[in-house]
Amino acid sequence: MTTVAFIGLGIMGGPMAANLVDAGFDVIGHNRSREKTERLAARGGRAATSVEEAVRDAGVVATMLPDSPDVRAVLAEVFAHARPGTLVIDFSTIRPDVAAELAAEGAGRGLRVLDAPVSGGEQGAIDAALSIMVGGTEEDFAAAAPVFDAVGRTVVRVGPAGAGQTVKAANQLVVAGTIELLAEAIVFIEAHGVDTEAALKVLGGGLAGSAVLERKGPAMLARDFTPGFRVELHDKDMGIVTAAAREAGVVIPLGAAVAQLIASLRAQGDGGLDHSALLGLVARLSGQEKSAL
Amino acid sequence: MTTVAFIGLGIMGGPMAANLVDAGFDVIGHNRSREKTERLAARGGRAATSVEEAVRDAGVVATMLPDSPDVRAVLAEVFAHARPGTLVIDFSTIRPDVAAELAAEGAGRGLRVLDAPVSGGEQGAIDAALSIMVGGTEEDFAAAAPVFDAVGRTVVRVGPAGAGQTVKAANQLVVAGTIELLAEAIVFIEAHGVDTEAALKVLGGGLAGSAVLERKGPAMLARDFTPGFRVELHDKDMGIVTAAAREAGVVIPLGAAVAQLIASLRAQGDGGLDHSALLGLVARLSGQEKSAL
Amino acid sequence: MTTVAFIGLGIMGGPMAANLVDAGFDVIGHNRSREKTERLAARGGRAATSVEEAVRDAGVVATMLPDSPDVRAVLAEVFAHARPGTLVIDFSTIRPDVAAELAAEGAGRGLRVLDAPVSGGEQGAIDAALSIMVGGTEEDFAAAAPVFDAVGRTVVRVGPAGAGQTVKAANQLVVAGTIELLAEAIVFIEAHGVDTEAALKVLGGGLAGSAVLERKGPAMLARDFTPGFRVELHDKDMGIVTAAAREAGVVIPLGAAVAQLIASLRAQGDGGLDHSALLGLVARLSGQEKSAL
Amino acid sequence: MTTVAFIGLGIMGGPMAANLVDAGFDVIGHNRSREKTERLAARGGRAATSVEEAVRDAGVVATMLPDSPDVRAVLAEVFAHARPGTLVIDFSTIRPDVAAELAAEGAGRGLRVLDAPVSGGEQGAIDAALSIMVGGTEEDFAAAAPVFDAVGRTVVRVGPAGAGQTVKAANQLVVAGTIELLAEAIVFIEAHGVDTEAALKVLGGGLAGSAVLERKGPAMLARDFTPGFRVELHDKDMGIVTAAAREAGVVIPLGAAVAQLIASLRAQGDGGLDHSALLGLVARLSGQEKSAL
Repeated sequence: MTTVAFIGLGIMGGPMAANLVDAGFDVIGHNRSREKTERLAARGGRAATSVEEAVRDAGVVATMLPDSPDVRAVLAEVFAHARPGTLVIDFSTIRPDVAAELAAEGAGRGLRVLDAPVSGGEQGAIDAALSIMVGGTEEDFAAAAPVFDAVGRTVVRVGPAGAGQTVKAANQLVVAGTIELLAEAIVFIEAHGVDTEAALKVLGGGLAGSAVLERKGPAMLARDFTPGFRVELHDKDMGIVTAAAREAGVVIPLGAAVAQLIASLRAQGDGGLDHSALLGLVARLSGQEKSAL
Repeated sequence: MTTVAFIGLGIMGGPMAANLVDAGFDVIGHNRSREKTERLAARGGRAATSVEEAVRDAGVVATMLPDSPDVRAVLAEVFAHARPGTLVIDFSTIRPDVAAELAAEGAGRGLRVLDAPVSGGEQGAIDAALSIMVGGTEEDFAAAAPVFDAVGRTVVRVGPAGAGQTVKAANQLVVAGTIELLAEAIVFIEAHGVDTEAALKVLGGGLAGSAVLERKGPAMLARDFTPGFRVELHDKDMGIVTAAAREAGVVIPLGAAVAQLIASLRAQGDGGLDHSALLGLVARLSGQEKSAL
Repeated sequence: MTTVAFIGLGIMGGPMAANLVDAGFDVIGHNRSREKTERLAARGGRAATSVEEAVRDAGVVATMLPDSPDVRAVLAEVFAHARPGTLVIDFSTIRPDVAAELAAEGAGRGLRVLDAPVSGGEQGAIDAALSIMVGGTEEDFAAAAPVFDAVGRTVVRVGPAGAGQTVKAANQLVVAGTIELLAEAIVFIEAHGVDTEAALKVLGGGLAGSAVLERKGPAMLARDFTPGFRVELHDKDMGIVTAAAREAGVVIPLGAAVAQLIASLRAQGDGGLDHSALLGLVARLSGQEKSAL
Repeated sequence: MTTVAFIGLGIMGGPMAANLVDAGFDVIGHNRSREKTERLAARGGRAATSVEEAVRDAGVVATMLPDSPDVRAVLAEVFAHARPGTLVIDFSTIRPDVAAELAAEGAGRGLRVLDAPVSGGEQGAIDAALSIMVGGTEEDFAAAAPVFDAVGRTVVRVGPAGAGQTVKAANQLVVAGTIELLAEAIVFIEAHGVDTEAALKVLGGGLAGSAVLERKGPAMLARDFTPGFRVELHDKDMGIVTAAAREAGVVIPLGAAVAQLIASLRAQGDGGLDHSALLGLVARLSGQEKSAL
């Protein structure tokens, strides 16, 4: 039975670790907040009081952390204490260049590092139905298959180290932009006194259809911005994709524009809302709703 | 057997009229190009040499024309010669305010006018699988149902006169933006040496999924920009939606930005390509492809 | 002594007509509001109760009206009643294509029409210090010189009929954009706790210097948005320039973006403020000021 | 006689060091390229073969380097070898947060660090007419006055450490945007067959006037894009200002948009041209000029 050390047991990492327990792995978890570690123990895993304790006997180390600096810090400890040959799977969404750099550093210590950011949100994590975009070698990807299968539904290796993060960055660009386009369409339709529910139905049936429209459209009409995926996290991700595009010399006019809008939402105090709150911003910009400020 | 006069037998109108023939209507068509009128006759319809001849004995008049001025001109003739009580269904994509104005003018002459722009493209027209967004009264919408059923699959009344055009304008905004977002994502991914096909697969499985990605993604990867829906028509439509948004005081930052990009494609001589040629523009802006100019 | 009929005696037209009186012209004015016409009479001009009365004996007809439809309506009357050979000078800011069309129509009736939009604001009108961008023939421009000299300081013929409006449209694009850039710079600097007055001083001394910075910078720092030139008028002008650019196939990414921002200001109820109120919008978007709504 | 160590003797640093020689300072210079160091020696300065040699006996250390990493690397050496109490003046344009961090680090070693980015270009450097935006303490600013006076004309302390870089970043945002607005205006005017020189004259006389129009307008009309200030440097600076705005939660829609356009110019191979080459990009986007690619 493979031992999986799981570092970062938050909204996403918690249910992912639980799914690994259910799939028969020996899961030893660690989180800065002791309470979350204990919740995993109560769910059939084991509790570690430090990263070192979690990883030293593990065959697989999984991490699910907020941002690049967190991943850097935790992987430094992992690299110091994990056994040679250990598979290290980082599920966090971080900068592609940092992911590639960490993979190289891990390789230098005999570790096999994969970047494996996910999409699908809290519900996807609970349902073990995440989409996972994996960067790393074919061989390591194959070795990690049982772990991926226990937490995800669509699992695709998209290229070498860092490639998973590149695709995740592109994903976040498309999602943010699609939400904003739908927000603009809804406010435009509402301003004309048209039946918005009927309109969404017909939009969804044609080339304007999207997962965003299907999953978030009704809540947007109802102005229900309960997260879901928070504005402040999407803002962080837009920072990643705009910086990576700049680095690569890729021009993303719409990506850059929507990054400003998400930054504005956060600056206006809406960072804790679902990213579909872009609708509220468009409505305020159009004078149709009062500012929350 | 209801007689349907069909004015405008082009790429879209031709197959729509043919589907009406197949559904059992007596279809009398007219097009400025005699050849297209004769094609309808050969397909089981009848040929009229003028709008007047087409409409004077019809119970329903259908129009499918390029732009607002064409519709104005043809409907002026229709209003002059159609019998009182005739249903007039304009399938064209035109300005919402012009549609509302024409409906009022028609009503003043005892005619019942519906705006009924479609989406679904040439293939949707051929397959009688169009999405149709209808503006007009409940009663007229009900009366037109047999005609709509013969050419469309998703048929929704979205509000009073002009509402169909409003929703179509919103549709074009969303479609253009979604294509551009996908284009930016693809160029971004390609620039990083990632497996783009695998990346599209995983993007399509999550919240970034869309009808655009599904139907146009593979052709975009292959740089196959055969229309489909031409840039120059989408450019016209972006003019409609940006003007209507301005008129209504609705702010559409992404819509306005993508309107500039489509205008650029057309200005650079790509007006005859499919709108997915936005990918080519992003690639040129990013220095990854040579300009066609 | 040349008789000048002056139609439109508002904030701009009023002082311009007064300056023509002072320059020795026989000025006969008309305005829908009787009060304004009488003010001109009290200032040494004559009052006409209709456009017809004003223009029938005039050698020059001048108009200063809010928008294209107003100019169309008034010039229709002018064309009907002015004597052949009369110089018609439209100082209004309207669409270049409408200006060109009206000039052609006037020429068909033996009139000599110039488009002559101005910049410089109320103060420039009072001081007879306007910049005037003139479209029309060299000959008519020369004939109009005494009138222009009485109201303007920088008077330039920029091309044939409509050219004045084209340059005015470009002027409004540059002015709006420059205000917005300064607004973004100020909010950026303020957010960093830097001495903003010192910063403006050094910005103004280099390549970032502009008339906008010099004339509006201090009031912007003080959040004094007393017009000046109102947001709602600039919004109208942005509609002109974005539509004209679209018509001409010219891509104006920054112009289109700032047009959205000005439209937003107006939609949020700030239409009556000076256009430098873009600063307030940027501050609100950045969470630094509460919305006025 | 104060000894000034000057590190970085390129297009800007070379003439600045020469002006310090002329002002009577004992200037000891160092550059990675030996040739540039020798040019300073021939001009009356002294040549150092290392940073250490240059700074160990200096009372003032000045640096003029391309980017944040260069400044970090050189200041590490400076901090290791300069005498306590030495004034360290960094004239480079780098990230405000890096400038503040280096100032704190220097202070920890008893050094007095000022960030002092300049504007005015090569000609301003040669003419000792630079604008200098200084961040640091009042006291250190006063102590550095003789050095600033020898190279600049408008010298303003704008706040504490990092503030100079903040204002420089704002300056680069405004300059890039103003060039782009002028480019859009010119292409718009040219597309209408208007006399562009006359148009620029009248634009320059009113609220659309700017230093950019005055200094770069004629060359832009002539498509003379000889640098001046290179696109690739301005692209680096746009990276600084967009990142700093993101960090501070400041929304800069126009700044973000023009950053994409400059990035595109560079990606298309125009990085070595003057930043006024934005005109070429707008013309290509508008189909009026062939791509250079």
